[in-house]
Amino acid sequence: MRIVDMQLTPVAVHDPPLRNSWGIHEPVFLRVIVRLRTDDGLIGLGEAPGGGGMVQALEAARSHVIGTDPWQLEPLRVSLRNARLFSALEEPCLDLIGKATGRPVADLLGGTIRRRVPYAAYLFFKEAGEDEWGEVMSPKAMVQLAERWVERWGFRCLKVKGGVLEPDAEVETMRLLRERFGPQMGLRIDPNAVWSVETSRRAAHKLRDVDLEYLEDPCAGITGMAEVAKATHIPLSTNMCVTAFEHLPEAFRAGAVSVVLADHHVWEGLTGCVKLGKICHSLGWGLGQHSNSHLGITMAAMTHLAAAVPNLIYASDSHYPWLEEDVIKGPMFRFVDGCLDVPSGPGLGVELDEAKLAVFAEAYERNRSHGRDDVSAMRKRDSSWLPLKPRW
Amino acid sequence: MRIVDMQLTPVAVHDPPLRNSWGIHEPVFLRVIVRLRTDDGLIGLGEAPGGGGMVQALEAARSHVIGTDPWQLEPLRVSLRNARLFSALEEPCLDLIGKATGRPVADLLGGTIRRRVPYAAYLFFKEAGEDEWGEVMSPKAMVQLAERWVERWGFRCLKVKGGVLEPDAEVETMRLLRERFGPQMGLRIDPNAVWSVETSRRAAHKLRDVDLEYLEDPCAGITGMAEVAKATHIPLSTNMCVTAFEHLPEAFRAGAVSVVLADHHVWEGLTGCVKLGKICHSLGWGLGQHSNSHLGITMAAMTHLAAAVPNLIYASDSHYPWLEEDVIKGPMFRFVDGCLDVPSGPGLGVELDEAKLAVFAEAYERNRSHGRDDVSAMRKRDSSWLPLKPRW
Repeated sequence: MRIVDMQLTPVAVHDPPLRNSWGIHEPVFLRVIVRLRTDDGLIGLGEAPGGGGMVQALEAARSHVIGTDPWQLEPLRVSLRNARLFSALEEPCLDLIGKATGRPVADLLGGTIRRRVPYAAYLFFKEAGEDEWGEVMSPKAMVQLAERWVERWGFRCLKVKGGVLEPDAEVETMRLLRERFGPQMGLRIDPNAVWSVETSRRAAHKLRDVDLEYLEDPCAGITGMAEVAKATHIPLSTNMCVTAFEHLPEAFRAGAVSVVLADHHVWEGLTGCVKLGKICHSLGWGLGQHSNSHLGITMAAMTHLAAAVPNLIYASDSHYPWLEEDVIKGPMFRFVDGCLDVPSGPGLGVELDEAKLAVFAEAYERNRSHGRDDVSAMRKRDSSWLPLKPRW
Repeated sequence: MRIVDMQLTPVAVHDPPLRNSWGIHEPVFLRVIVRLRTDDGLIGLGEAPGGGGMVQALEAARSHVIGTDPWQLEPLRVSLRNARLFSALEEPCLDLIGKATGRPVADLLGGTIRRRVPYAAYLFFKEAGEDEWGEVMSPKAMVQLAERWVERWGFRCLKVKGGVLEPDAEVETMRLLRERFGPQMGLRIDPNAVWSVETSRRAAHKLRDVDLEYLEDPCAGITGMAEVAKATHIPLSTNMCVTAFEHLPEAFRAGAVSVVLADHHVWEGLTGCVKLGKICHSLGWGLGQHSNSHLGITMAAMTHLAAAVPNLIYASDSHYPWLEEDVIKGPMFRFVDGCLDVPSGPGLGVELDEAKLAVFAEAYERNRSHGRDDVSAMRKRDSSWLPLKPRW
């Protein structure tokens, strides 16, 4: 089995005006659909972050891909010398291996530990837009959004993307969510490193009785996180200060975090995340999954990963509920009791809908000047906007 | 693909009178040949340490094996709750997966990084026995043994199993080896934790200009090793104080070692060793492979592992050169320039020779009372022998 062709299709997908500490999501997010074709006619499907930049980087790596055997993942990783590029190619390679062997990707990652994968409701403060959710810019509005999501999809864990309102208002948001949903609901907040160390400590103290699963990236950097960790019993999680294997020793020595949020687009692919899982287990750390705006191919990959890694017991984050249309054939993924069933495969178990893809690809042509630039998007509303970190 | 039968064949294999800090090898070593048969008629081959005890433990686990799909490795590991049991079963499962997919085991572990795997000459002090090597109980005799091994097999790295002669004599052995083989030869000594911390420090000081690759387990325990590590620039390696994932945090915090010697019979199988490899890479540690007396199935598995793990750059240990007959079909493995070519598979790429197996199985029936008990074997020569640790 040899890869004989790599087809890259950048796509732009409508995104609601979600707020975060950088600013606000642009009207579209950009992904690249990767298709690897083998000499025996199989197509391996992948979805990577980014638009033109990622396409260019993958094009530059074409000679490392064409002619290779999809099973040779470590040689490819070593050759590419770039975790994100490798991740973009490992996903379609695993899809190919799965299709060639008739196996779901979960089995290629060590087997299926769980058939239903729990996800967290990924709740954002947001402006009103062309979506059904309206403006969410207060603690009470956030509780109302959570109510609608829990009712519709049965989530048993709520993650709030913080760093948008004043810290006290976000603390209040978490208190209201606890009050509304009772002790069984998992709760997390992610201020996206926009709080100072002092503000983080003060907020953690105010959150002490809210019983958070964890506090995600309250402030920036391993040193700052370690200072916060000393001051609170709330576990700290990160997808910002520990994003590569080489960050692990310093974070461990410093006691900076106790939960790492894996992302197979970042951590050397799905196989890299399997290894990260074992490292977290060895270090006594928890493991979750980080998400960016994404389509159904990533949704399938994340679900296979969570199915295969024993200690991935935190509900995974996913932006998918914000998505209105997907590129995959058939119905979109639908959360039931906050969970997704693991696609049965072979491979990732999803197929591309060419007609839908054409629409998103055409949207990319109209929006190709957009990266994902939340700062610029915010400046269209407030020309003086600066993404200060820390802001508070 | 379901496993429908598990066949366990304990075997006894002739072993020369090799000395170590426990005593002396018994005249035979015991292994268990594991065969898993699937409903589609494939046979997965494995080789595990131990005799009757391992057979009993595997028999007790039969219900976890029969009816399962060999791809479901992590569910099996979690169910068995025992790293060594899992390892004994993971090897034949990977052989099955390889045979079902037409792939060498190296590809199942991430792909083939290297086609030729370097091994170290695993040199022992020994008594004269029914072997061609004669008595080796002095520094000079060890140099002569090394000369014969290097001439025959081309090893570029010499590992001396120490802890047998007085520490100064073993230091002298390493000096003589350096003198004889020049600066390009890799050199290691493994006193098997029989030195005290003080003796280890003193010996390390005396070895400071011998340019060892590493000093393996000079003394016992993470705390002791950390004390030695502080006193020397020679890297310390271990297969004794770090033998499970849960030992890693303490060893890292203490700075006890800088090289871990993997063993797929111990570290949750070949897939466990792949993960250990990534952990060592992340922590800035080196990675090698430990060995016990073994046959060709283990030889194949170790070679696939070393082929697949990028940072497994230390030459692996192997007792195989001490072996006179194997259970595998065809010629025995033969080291050339100190290396073995990776078997091309499918699976492990070795087959069982039923006639040879029958001989070893019959030898087991005659020797079943023997475990591997180097202390008892030594007492037959010296009734007052005690395996003191530390002895010096």
